[in-house]
Amino acid sequence: LVPAQAACCFTSNTIKAAPVIVDRMRYARSRFFRAILANSGNANCHNGRRGVSDALAAGDAFAGALGIPSEQILLASTGIIGKRLPVERLVQAAPQLAAGLSRSGIGNAARAILTTDTRSKEVTARCVLSGKPVTICGIAKGAGMISPSMATMLAFILTDASVQPSVLRSCLRSAVDASFNCITVDGCMSTNDTVILLANGCASNAAVRAGRDLRIFSAALSAVCLRLAQMIVRDAEGITKFITIRVRGAQTRAQARRVGLAIANSSLFKTAMYGENPNYGRIAAAAGASGVRVQESALRVRVSPLRARDITVEVSIGRGQASATVYTSDLSPEYIKINAEYT
Amino acid sequence: LVPAQAACCFTSNTIKAAPVIVDRMRYARSRFFRAILANSGNANCHNGRRGVSDALAAGDAFAGALGIPSEQILLASTGIIGKRLPVERLVQAAPQLAAGLSRSGIGNAARAILTTDTRSKEVTARCVLSGKPVTICGIAKGAGMISPSMATMLAFILTDASVQPSVLRSCLRSAVDASFNCITVDGCMSTNDTVILLANGCASNAAVRAGRDLRIFSAALSAVCLRLAQMIVRDAEGITKFITIRVRGAQTRAQARRVGLAIANSSLFKTAMYGENPNYGRIAAAAGASGVRVQESALRVRVSPLRARDITVEVSIGRGQASATVYTSDLSPEYIKINAEYT
Repeated sequence: LVPAQAACCFTSNTIKAAPVIVDRMRYARSRFFRAILANSGNANCHNGRRGVSDALAAGDAFAGALGIPSEQILLASTGIIGKRLPVERLVQAAPQLAAGLSRSGIGNAARAILTTDTRSKEVTARCVLSGKPVTICGIAKGAGMISPSMATMLAFILTDASVQPSVLRSCLRSAVDASFNCITVDGCMSTNDTVILLANGCASNAAVRAGRDLRIFSAALSAVCLRLAQMIVRDAEGITKFITIRVRGAQTRAQARRVGLAIANSSLFKTAMYGENPNYGRIAAAAGASGVRVQESALRVRVSPLRARDITVEVSIGRGQASATVYTSDLSPEYIKINAEYT
Repeated sequence: LVPAQAACCFTSNTIKAAPVIVDRMRYARSRFFRAILANSGNANCHNGRRGVSDALAAGDAFAGALGIPSEQILLASTGIIGKRLPVERLVQAAPQLAAGLSRSGIGNAARAILTTDTRSKEVTARCVLSGKPVTICGIAKGAGMISPSMATMLAFILTDASVQPSVLRSCLRSAVDASFNCITVDGCMSTNDTVILLANGCASNAAVRAGRDLRIFSAALSAVCLRLAQMIVRDAEGITKFITIRVRGAQTRAQARRVGLAIANSSLFKTAMYGENPNYGRIAAAAGASGVRVQESALRVRVSPLRARDITVEVSIGRGQASATVYTSDLSPEYIKINAEYT
């Protein structure tokens, strides 16, 4: 197990799950990690101090089985909030988990983290940095409580590239900003959202700092994150429509995204899409309630034909030159069924 | 038709319907009005300049039939956004409408403004001010796009009390703040929301200014608004649960309301209530995502038994002494059905 440099993004929910609390402490102290221990079915959130001690115990057992310090493991959980983590089962499984590690195990990991997801999400990109071939491979899960949240969003991205530490963090921040932070299924922000990028440098490229290599690595990482984020929306709970919302004419990218997310989170917009109902006034109403000063006379809305599974909504608000693209699903009775019964 | 002093509250959506645009202009110039012309089925919103000229034409026809200046009429519309107002039909109906005015017509008005509502909403309060009996009668409509929003919220409150102008406005503001601004069905803010209070002074009480009369009038008005707001939620699209959320321990009332509305607008919370599913972690997750710094260790949540139609959620966030109460409905497949098909 080669130590890898890490860059992480965690939920901004003030209620944070125990694994997020542990990871934030560890990430504040060190940027080098060797393993991620993730479980699905239980979010280990809102469990107080016992949640944290349970998370630590699970991590310790796994670290012991791997023969590495506990501080070199990052933790992630997803599932029901407020139920105690079945820590005994995790502790008992640790030796078997450690023994089962394999170079070709990423597919198993991608399947193991699913909850209400209907399929696993895995994306690989390859590029060349300072003459060396480099691979970036990401897996993710998430289908509801995405804004991102119950199913919760987790994404783990592994690369053998060597990247300068501050560059690794800024590349991840910009990739997440344009991908996982631009998707919403239900406007519900999870307590467990976690994106972890581990770069172990095994490709032996000259550490990425600037220039062409930075552009190549950043573009490849962004492509992996965007593809994973889109896969999460395509697998959204109860989805019948995959909706791309492009907002143009904003003063800043953040303003454009705010308008896009306001539309994407409108239950009336989402139900209209589900019903293939051309009730475009709801788009204007949602944009006007976004907190951005959208004027009716400047607002332009175009929607692609509603019969298709993939729908594009183009909105121009006529205030500036900035734009953003947001991805969402419709709101169907199946979403309600899944979440009325989930536990 | 006695001129009445008016106090009004309009939507804060930056996309405003034509009748709201007209009312705001008229209300800026004068505080005395004699009539309200309201229609349902068409919101007359997002119709550009033609929307405004259509609204003015409908108002002019009605003013002509009543023999009063157009500027003394307030307008309100509710229904589909983005379709032209059938102004000819309104103009043609004006003489009949004017001829049909009656002291006992409030019930007809309450029914005429409904859209997806299943019942009419009318509340009357009586009190005594400076020895004179006074009546406050309010009607409202709204069932979806309530945060308040498509069905849109309209409320018209009539009283024969005489009230000092600035007092009338501040009484309405505080009544609306604790009623219509504390309800949400779907988190969607309408372009047409309008609350109009008309006070014609026919009760001949000494104009309400301060002291005991102010407390009595303000309490009666607040009770009418709260009851109407609760009736709107009880008639929410697809409702199977009426949910009261009490948030305590906040630093300010606004902070308490923000936490309450974050919970009330969480699709995951609402679907759990629909499914009678004790997934209380979703309440913590929504509170933590509200923008208020809610700490897990200080958070207390209690929920009344889920089998009942009326459910109370009590949340304490342990930051201060302020509290707020918010009312909402659950999210059911019927809500989706209604809004997928609406047009």
